[in-house]
Amino acid sequence: MAHIQLPEGAPGIIGPMIAYPETEKHLNGLAEALLRGPSSLTPAERETIAARVSSGNECFFCTQTHAAAARELYGSECEVVDQVLKDARTAPVSEKMKALLAIADKVRQDGRLVKDEDVERARAAGADDKAIHDTVLIAAAFCMFNRYVDGLSTWAPQEVAAYKPMGEKLAQGGYVHSIR
Amino acid sequence: MAHIQLPEGAPGIIGPMIAYPETEKHLNGLAEALLRGPSSLTPAERETIAARVSSGNECFFCTQTHAAAARELYGSECEVVDQVLKDARTAPVSEKMKALLAIADKVRQDGRLVKDEDVERARAAGADDKAIHDTVLIAAAFCMFNRYVDGLSTWAPQEVAAYKPMGEKLAQGGYVHSIR
Repeated sequence: MAHIQLPEGAPGIIGPMIAYPETEKHLNGLAEALLRGPSSLTPAERETIAARVSSGNECFFCTQTHAAAARELYGSECEVVDQVLKDARTAPVSEKMKALLAIADKVRQDGRLVKDEDVERARAAGADDKAIHDTVLIAAAFCMFNRYVDGLSTWAPQEVAAYKPMGEKLAQGGYVHSIR
Repeated sequence: MAHIQLPEGAPGIIGPMIAYPETEKHLNGLAEALLRGPSSLTPAERETIAARVSSGNECFFCTQTHAAAARELYGSECEVVDQVLKDARTAPVSEKMKALLAIADKVRQDGRLVKDEDVERARAAGADDKAIHDTVLIAAAFCMFNRYVDGLSTWAPQEVAAYKPMGEKLAQGGYVHSIR
């Protein structure tokens, strides 16, 4: 049972987003700008960062939802997502992504852990200011989304297969109309 | 030095908000809805929850900014803010605020720490669904704002007095035009 009354059958963040539209529009606007807007990182890379942070925070709903979206966006290379969730250091991603995932892991714990050398490593591997900004804000934003979902004790489907249609919808349609 | 190039002299979150307007509008829209929009909690109470969470995360800029806004909004009772920052359990606030601050402290650490009895205690003291929702999302959102500010290593004034004009501006004008 969720801690507050929410629409029945709406999983995870969808319930409070339907019930509280005055904050929903900004939350989905932020997700759209961060995960689909102009960036030097692909939407697949950004969804993978979101899934990795959610996995670190052990938020099952957000991890499964954004891993499913990332798999859709990676297409034939979709197994990279589960390798990043398992171990970002050995996953078959670029050096740039490895450095950005290391920054995201630190931001998830405490923003102050990010040191100049972490950022220099990302820059040396080709990350620009926008990639570093987006990585920090995606990691920070998922620390919010994960706590919103879990702090209200929302319901989430336990079968991983249930997230595939959500991932397809988010991969194709983005976030602005995601709850409609 | 911040980790990315930011406008000079713009403290804390203001720098990345000016430099990245496509996310700024959603971040300030969310802050306005959460801290100033319709709620069963007063803006003073909501700013105090924001300051308390930021203090727990040791984000100096956000703590000082939102404590200054809360002091302005509390007016003659402004000393309550510093008492909440010091010890929320003994501060001279209502039982409802004490219970909500305890929920916020848990969400700050991990949303899953919030238990049915925490929510029952808040309800018994008069908190409705909207107050519980807003408390959880304010705590979650400041876990984002704090990490955005610190993960980019933004500059912040060290003198507490520097935050009083910011607090006055936010108390009077809110967030929508806060960086202009």
